[in-house]
Amino acid sequence: MSQVLNLLEERLQYHFHDAELLSQALTHRSHSAMNNERMEFLGDSILNFAVAIFLFRRYPKLDEGDLSRVRANLVKQQSLCEIAQILGLSDFLRLGEGELKSGGFRRPSILADALEALFGAVCLDGGFDAAYALIERLYVGVLDRVDLKTLGKDAKTLLQEYLQGYKIALPQYSVIAIHGTAHNQQFEVECIVPKLNVKVDGSGPSRRAAEQVAAKKAIEAAEKTLALTYPKAERKKECVAKVR
Amino acid sequence: MSQVLNLLEERLQYHFHDAELLSQALTHRSHSAMNNERMEFLGDSILNFAVAIFLFRRYPKLDEGDLSRVRANLVKQQSLCEIAQILGLSDFLRLGEGELKSGGFRRPSILADALEALFGAVCLDGGFDAAYALIERLYVGVLDRVDLKTLGKDAKTLLQEYLQGYKIALPQYSVIAIHGTAHNQQFEVECIVPKLNVKVDGSGPSRRAAEQVAAKKAIEAAEKTLALTYPKAERKKECVAKVR
Repeated sequence: MSQVLNLLEERLQYHFHDAELLSQALTHRSHSAMNNERMEFLGDSILNFAVAIFLFRRYPKLDEGDLSRVRANLVKQQSLCEIAQILGLSDFLRLGEGELKSGGFRRPSILADALEALFGAVCLDGGFDAAYALIERLYVGVLDRVDLKTLGKDAKTLLQEYLQGYKIALPQYSVIAIHGTAHNQQFEVECIVPKLNVKVDGSGPSRRAAEQVAAKKAIEAAEKTLALTYPKAERKKECVAKVR
Repeated sequence: MSQVLNLLEERLQYHFHDAELLSQALTHRSHSAMNNERMEFLGDSILNFAVAIFLFRRYPKLDEGDLSRVRANLVKQQSLCEIAQILGLSDFLRLGEGELKSGGFRRPSILADALEALFGAVCLDGGFDAAYALIERLYVGVLDRVDLKTLGKDAKTLLQEYLQGYKIALPQYSVIAIHGTAHNQQFEVECIVPKLNVKVDGSGPSRRAAEQVAAKKAIEAAEKTLALTYPKAERKKECVAKVR
């Protein structure tokens, strides 16, 4: 095995018995016919299962809806890409000439796919337990940094739950303007929380998207208002009461 | 453990160390708070992974697209339900009174969910290898009965591939009539394969659905025509040539 791949093994804290598997996991389809696509199929399902059992054991009180939401967020391309960047995976990829020239080693989909293929390769090389241990090592740090109550929830849901925590009536959304031509429209939406005197707007290519932008601004505005209205101690109490 | 559950264990060829896990896997949310929903979340991901690695090993030449297609078909509700029926799972379910009265033990979603929860329970009780062995036992028989080349493909795709195997030009689809009111339309579509003098029609609530019905009829018509045109030996040769 090349010195370069030894470095990756060190970062993974896993040593391959069959170096060919590691090499194949890093090979994009633009490079050769013997590439990582089948391994990625396998790795994707290992990742889903490993994260499922990891969350199941670690959070015995999360219901299946929350487990699904948290998992979906942990295994999405962006999360995989962040882990791939921590590992410096782009330095080890084997890409075809076209992909090399167009900067394929930085493309999120290529990085995420290669990481999944690596999980597949470790499973083929060392069995499921080895792949699980690797995934656990990589994700423990991620889980320590995220808030399980909010992870993967959209801004409208977060705003609603936030207001419910203070027993404040639901926010009201209304479209105030639509600009542009039929297939290139821009929506402007207003979001109002009367009790807090919050009135913000957001825009986006659909009503839904504009509402999300407005909801995000409304959360920030509501937090500011509540910080002035409630003393700190009371806010903390309210906040804990929200946690299931 | 009750005698009844022993019977299920015999059918599963798996004996639980912790009988509570088996009991919980069979408990629907309508019955009690301690139900199978979290186990189903876990079991769903074990099933996906187990079938993935099983297909990966058994079919080294299937590409990732075909692996995904075949897996999706094997883990869908209908397939799970068929296995649940073979196991006679409905006799062992614990349902709430309302579900019992409305025949919930026959409902495909309840049966499929309980089977997935069983996979989760076996994994928690005996580890991944035990769950994998169970899933493999249940699916080997299924795989022997299906055609991997066609499993999960829609009729339009099958017709196209079938004609390509004989180097015959693509079929032509056209809408010949639309009946009904705006929200209750019925489409009639014609499918033509000029070289074979095939001309059939199909109807459905959308253009897409009608095309699928027509494509299915076109396959049958094309097979009849080709049976007359080509001698049997030649058809077989063509057929083998189509297989990847």
